[in-house]
Formats: sequence, C-alpha cells, structure tokens
Amino acid sequence: MLPDWLHQRTSLTPDRLALVVGDLHWSFRDLDQQATEMAQRLSTLSLSIGDRVALLLWNGAPFVTLVHALSRLGLVLVPLNTRLTPAEVRWQLFDARARLLIYDEVNAQSAIAATHDLPELRLLLLDRWPHHLPPLTSHLPPPTSFSLAAIHTLLYTSGTTGYPKGALLTYGNHWWSAMGSALNLGLHADDRWLACLPLFHVGGLAILLRGVIYGNTVIVHETFDSAAVNQAIDEEGVTLVSVVSTMLQRMLAERGERRYPPTLRCVLLGGGPAPRDLLEACARRGVPVVQTYGLTEAASQVATLAPEDALRKLGSAGKPLFPTELRIEREGAEASAGEVGEIVVRGPTVTPGYADHPEATAQVMRDGWFHTGDLGYLDEEGYLYVLDRRDDLIISGGENVYPAEVEAVLRSHPAVEDAGVVGVPDERWGQVPAAFVVARAGVEVTEADLKSFCDARLARYKVPTYVNLVPSLPRNASGKLLRRVLAENLK
Amino acid sequence: MLPDWLHQRTSLTPDRLALVVGDLHWSFRDLDQQATEMAQRLSTLSLSIGDRVALLLWNGAPFVTLVHALSRLGLVLVPLNTRLTPAEVRWQLFDARARLLIYDEVNAQSAIAATHDLPELRLLLLDRWPHHLPPLTSHLPPPTSFSLAAIHTLLYTSGTTGYPKGALLTYGNHWWSAMGSALNLGLHADDRWLACLPLFHVGGLAILLRGVIYGNTVIVHETFDSAAVNQAIDEEGVTLVSVVSTMLQRMLAERGERRYPPTLRCVLLGGGPAPRDLLEACARRGVPVVQTYGLTEAASQVATLAPEDALRKLGSAGKPLFPTELRIEREGAEASAGEVGEIVVRGPTVTPGYADHPEATAQVMRDGWFHTGDLGYLDEEGYLYVLDRRDDLIISGGENVYPAEVEAVLRSHPAVEDAGVVGVPDERWGQVPAAFVVARAGVEVTEADLKSFCDARLARYKVPTYVNLVPSLPRNASGKLLRRVLAENLK
Repeated sequence: MLPDWLHQRTSLTPDRLALVVGDLHWSFRDLDQQATEMAQRLSTLSLSIGDRVALLLWNGAPFVTLVHALSRLGLVLVPLNTRLTPAEVRWQLFDARARLLIYDEVNAQSAIAATHDLPELRLLLLDRWPHHLPPLTSHLPPPTSFSLAAIHTLLYTSGTTGYPKGALLTYGNHWWSAMGSALNLGLHADDRWLACLPLFHVGGLAILLRGVIYGNTVIVHETFDSAAVNQAIDEEGVTLVSVVSTMLQRMLAERGERRYPPTLRCVLLGGGPAPRDLLEACARRGVPVVQTYGLTEAASQVATLAPEDALRKLGSAGKPLFPTELRIEREGAEASAGEVGEIVVRGPTVTPGYADHPEATAQVMRDGWFHTGDLGYLDEEGYLYVLDRRDDLIISGGENVYPAEVEAVLRSHPAVEDAGVVGVPDERWGQVPAAFVVARAGVEVTEADLKSFCDARLARYKVPTYVNLVPSLPRNASGKLLRRVLAENLK
Repeated sequence: MLPDWLHQRTSLTPDRLALVVGDLHWSFRDLDQQATEMAQRLSTLSLSIGDRVALLLWNGAPFVTLVHALSRLGLVLVPLNTRLTPAEVRWQLFDARARLLIYDEVNAQSAIAATHDLPELRLLLLDRWPHHLPPLTSHLPPPTSFSLAAIHTLLYTSGTTGYPKGALLTYGNHWWSAMGSALNLGLHADDRWLACLPLFHVGGLAILLRGVIYGNTVIVHETFDSAAVNQAIDEEGVTLVSVVSTMLQRMLAERGERRYPPTLRCVLLGGGPAPRDLLEACARRGVPVVQTYGLTEAASQVATLAPEDALRKLGSAGKPLFPTELRIEREGAEASAGEVGEIVVRGPTVTPGYADHPEATAQVMRDGWFHTGDLGYLDEEGYLYVLDRRDDLIISGGENVYPAEVEAVLRSHPAVEDAGVVGVPDERWGQVPAAFVVARAGVEVTEADLKSFCDARLARYKVPTYVNLVPSLPRNASGKLLRRVLAENLK
C-alpha cells in the first residue's frame, strides 16, 4: 500500500510547479484540487470501483486531471489513440467493456460515430476547461491508499502488426517503472520533463505519473511541433524530453547546427530501433540522447542506455532497469552473447496480462517471463541491441533479413529521407525484401542508384528486390513504421 | 521479487566506484567478487536460509562485504554495537538466537567474553582482509532474486531507555527507504555518500544498501574523525554525509569559518532533535543541513526536511518520505496542527515487528500504525517537529516538561558546550527537572548564572531545580544522550 500519489505529493510539496500547458501553470496543490473536483463530478455517475473509463482526448490539462481523478475513485483508465478510425475505437471500447467514454470537442465526431451501437456505454463530452463548470457539492471520502496490485490502466498496445491487445498495468507496474527510470537517469530538484508524445501512449502517460511521484514539473505540448519543442528546451528549462526518432530528426532539422543548452540533460529516444545516422548526428552535435527499449506491457522503459554509455554504446538500448530482468531466448533456452533471439523480460513493471484474454496472456507469459516477440541480442558486456519485431522478420532463402537493418542502410543514402522494408512473396526464395523510399525534397535518385548503394553495403540476400519511390510512409501516432500497411499496398 | 541488488548493480555498472575505505577502492565488480568469495567461505559452515548471523565488527570493507555475502546466502544480518559490554552482547546474541558470530581482532576480547556460555553459537574471527585468504573451491548457485518480504536484518534498537528490542527489517523495508530518500534528496550521477556513523546502526547500514541500489560511491570511515570528514568533503567529492548533532558540532568547530565546497549538497542530520543554535550556525555558514527523524523500526529515515525548506523550517524534521504516512496521536485520535502527541508511522518501510516477541510488537503496532513513543507535533503546513522521547517526558505539577526544550535553552548559553536534562523525584511536584551541564573549556559559569538564564527564557515549572556542572555527558555510539544513565547518577 502507498498513499494516493497526487495527494501525498501535494502534502509534501504543494507549491512546486506540477504542470505547464501553454499559459496554464498548475502547482501540485492546483492539480490536486482539479483532480478532486473532477472526481466529485464523476462520482455522481454511479460507477463502481474497477469500472473502466475510456478517454478520447487531445493532450492537455483535462487529460492530466482525469488520470488522477480516476485513480481517486478506483476507476481504471483506458486511454484511446485519437488517431484511430471510429471502427477501431469501437472495437477497443467493446473489448475493454468500458462503462464511460470521456471525449473532447476535437474528438466528438469520432466518439459519436464509434459508439452508436454500444448502448451500455455512457458518453461524457468534456468541456475543454472543466474547472469552469460550477463545482459539485457531493462529498468524496478523503483520498485513500493505493494497493500496488490494483489495476491502474488498460492500455491497447500500438503494435504495428495484428490486432491490438489490452494490456493491464497495475499501480505497482507504474511505480516500479518510475523507480527504475530514476535509478538510471537520476533525479534532480530542477527536473522538468517535456511530454510532446501523445499522453494516450505509455511513454506519455509514464511522464505524468513520474511527475507526481518525483515531484517534478511536466510540460505538456498539445501536439508535436519541432520548433515549439526546441523553444521549450531553450527557454523553459526542460531537462528531459521523451521522443521517437522521427520527432528527433525534425527537431534537429529545425534547429540547424545550434547546440542545445546544458540544462537539457537527457533526450529519451524510444519507439523502436533508432537509425544509426541519427544517433551519430546527435553525438556530433552533443545532444544527450539515450536510446530506450520500451513496451506497453512493461509500463514503458524496459532497458535504457545509461547516459555515461551514450557514446561508447551507440545504437544500443542499454541495460535493463534496476528492478527488471532481461534475457535473450533462442529455442526456449538462454542465448549466448551476440546470438540473436527473442527478448524476454521479467520483473515488477511487467503487466499481469491482457484484460479478459487469458489465452493471449498465456501465449506470452511463461514462468513469469514476458515474451516480447521482439528480436535482439546482448553484446559481451550485456548491452541490448534491438533488431526488429519478429513479426516483421523476412526469411529469404533460409536467411533472416531484419527490415530495420536494410532501412538503416537506405536512410544513410544522402538522397533518402525515410525508408521502409517489408517481405514480399517470391517463388524462388520464399520471401524477398521490398523497399519503400521517400526521397529528400529536390533531390534526384533512381531505384537503380539505391539498389547499387545497398549492394555495396549488404549481403546479397538482404538487398531489396524492389525499390519503390513514394511520397510518404505510413507511421502511427508514436512514429512507428506500419509495415503491415506497406505490405498491403503490394497486394 | 527483485534481482539480487549487488549482482544487478554489478551487471548494470560494473566499473563504477562502489566503496572507498582509506586506500581501498572497489568497483561494483570488485565488491561483487568479494561478496561472492565471502559467501563461498560461509557456505561451508552448514547454515540454513533464515539463520541469523551476528557481526561484531569495526567499520570497514569486511563489514560491507559481509552485508552482501549474507544476503546471497539468505542469512539474516544481526549487526551488534561494538560499544556494548560483553553482558549486553551476550544478551542480544541469546535473544536473537544467533547461529554464528563474526568478529574482528579489535572486538575479539568482547566476543569471547560474551559467548563463553552460548555453546550453540559458532564463532568466526575474521581476518581484517579476508580476500587475502585462499579462495575456496566450493561452488555457489548463482545469485537469485530477493523477495521483498524476506528478512534482511535483525537490528537491536539503540533506544536510550529500557531493554533493547530486536527489530526485523525486510528487503522491502530497506528498498522502500532507499526509494523514499531518493525521492526527497534526489539522485545525482556523481553522488558520493560518506558513512562516518557506525555501520551497525541503521543510519550507517542504510548508506551501504542505498549505495548498491543507487549505484553511487560509499566512502566509509573506520571511526568518526571531524578533521578526516572535513578533508573528505574538501578533497574526495563527498556530496552527502549522514551525521548526528555532536558530530556536526565537532566538524564545524574543527573547520572554523571556512565554507564547505558546493559539491557537498546534503548533510543529513539525524539521531534526535537538533539544538537550534547548531542549525542556526549551519544556516549562517551555508552548510546544506537537513534534519531527519529516523527510527531503526522504519529502516532509517521516516521524515526528512526537503533541502528547499532547510532555512524556512529550521528545527523541523520535515515531512514523511513519499511512501510513508505519519500522524500525531493524542489519546488514540489524530491530533490537530500544533497539538503535541505521539508520532505514529505507517508504510512499507515499517518493520514487521520485533523478532520472537509478538507481545512487544503488539504493544507498538495497531492497525498497521507503528507507535514510536516519540513526542512531536505537525505545524499548520504539516511539518514535523520532534520534541522528545515520551519515556523521557518529565511531568511536574501536572505540567509537561520536555527535556529537549530545556536543553536547547541551556545550550544557547555562550558558556555551555553540552547539556542534558532529566526528571528527579520531588515531594511537592512529583518530578522536577535536573540539568547536567558541560561548560566550554576555559569559561567560567556558575549554577546560579544558568538558572537565572533559564528563568528569563522558560516557564517557571520548566526551569531546572538542580544544575550540575559535569565534565562530559553519557552518549551512545550514535551520539544520542543517555538520559537513563544521567538519572541513575542522581540516585
């Protein structure tokens, strides 16, 4: 049992700045008051402890307030991706057995379209500034303790393949994740963490929860804007920021050669293996980037490169968080150093399972080890290198082709802006790699150029048989490449 | 379950400096190797998981090594106070049902005298540098996970009154204490924590455990020497140091007016309420002191003043650690702000109880709240002020007299070096306060001077009826005033 996090944080440091969204500046006392009022409003809706409440909300103060208000009522947070189609939203609401959907005006059309045939579900349109509504008079019992085993979140994984699965995350999962992150990245009194990722993904949500546990300031951007992020780093004392590769690329492009101020102590880079040229550009320009390997099912970070190793182990996602055990499995046994296998994870950040889908849980959880489906290896010193999603693996003539490896080569071509590689059926080899390439604006490049560029850098079987120049690549809200969509384009 | 702390720390950051004792510098890899070898040696002694192993050791590398070696074998650490008489050592060994006593040459006489009639107990004289012994060939299973509910330590409280009681501390108690401390004091990559307190007290032991959990360097001094502490702060990059009031007084006296370097970010001051004049001297001289209120039964810190409040709340022990709940009880109910009552504590740092003494546990543990026996109050903002041990409370004519308050007044007299106050029986008032005063060297002061000084500053009933000038006051190893010994001097 732990005291209610926001309540305890407010007791300890009421006047510290908790949240900045645009011109809004809330202390922990303000945030606590907002969450209390929101909880009072929600308490009139006849919900029961453990009921699931979905949010279809833009990044902003209401999202943050609701995260804590739901905790106070013992309700389970179900953050929905605002970029889903109504059919996808509907499926998640149905699968989650959500009792209430809270949405904002921006997402109203989607919310209504998604729910017309879910009569059990209540809808609540949230005014953008709910604290302007008259406070309700209902009295709530004072905040109680949190059981670490209780469910905090039901979060659908943004996997790039297959059906989304609803991972349960306990208070303990989030707490241990926050502890593990602090033990790696440190805790400074002046820390300010910028959330420019969607709050509906685990990477964004974790920033909010760490904020109240650590007592640091969280700056939330309503959407990702590279110039605004650079400005916040320059002018608002941002010390940590979480990004994915595409965001970081845009930040660097927007900034030019100007260095970041020394107050920026960590750029946490998640969302899949990072292109090596991006990491090298950061190293050249003194950007304190540390790569992380995270999973929704492990409450965000699983392994993160320690800042002290950022240069020496470029390309690695580092070592597991202190409370976490990580190993590589190959045919059920632990792989040796350098051997590629499936990344498996155990520890107190790992989900108790997928909600209401014991068979899906049983598929991935064996002896307490969560089987991620991701491929990687540990080097001689135990540093993790993530190769790819197993589901994306291309097997060509019995040889394994990891799309990320081929993409990294293509991206290192001076004319290439972005690249995605998938397997396509082939009579002779089973599968062969096919590449989709976005050329830099105003630069001429041919398919033949790119093939010969790859020829010089990759084993024969890894060179794409097909190279398609396209105007853009499909990526999801957190910047992950949707290889499945690419593959479908080929059918 | 968590991975073995030292093993995981060594996997994560093998080359970081773990321990400095004089000229000895051990990385985490070195410390892990030492602990492994020590565990191999101990594994030949036919001990079973859960067996209690007492240490009667001077501060140093062998103590540190043994702490981790015992964990690896699932043995319970019983650190004994090296300043105890043989009769006291014998009583604790008997009460703890210790199976093994490990001692060093310095403590050999005491160890042997204490154990001559405990035939079930094995003795092991530890060579001062056990790693010079030939390593044994026995093979240990690899380090396993720690259950947070397992017992790590059995620690006799150094209470200044009554019989010592053996408090059980779990791995979880220590872990949560480390987390709570980090959430208050922060975690910096360059942290070096100086342990000049005895390692057999919870305050010293906690530094060792935080060291492996945080991955920071611990510098151990074999004994307290104010000049050596000041030198380590100046020359060895000490960022945090744990002290009690008498140590800090000696450090300041030794140093004169020279300021501490900015690398020193926190002087954690425990061991009972601090004299106000000492805190004021620190404030004047820019010493970053933060007062803490700690208990053996809560794995060290319970409440600690946040560094940002150090000046504004001088004299306060701050607010509880993040995982800890604290309140003041008065006649079984929660006291209001400003009301003095008993300090009670709940949370994951609190002991599961006293070993093998369920009745002693039941006396202090009610509804999960640990009743400390200490008196204090919370101000309007929730900051804790510790007044005194209830056992030391003097009741005179129905009025409460808190010895610490009278002592603080006496210590603020320019001629007074130290002061202790106890109650003595009195026919008319029941009890009256009696003071023992150590005058500053070379300064003349009379009993009448001191009484009239108190008269001007304290309610009549608080003024000591007797003032005795003495050459020194009895204090225990951690600097706590032994009022019981003072009172016995009066009989």
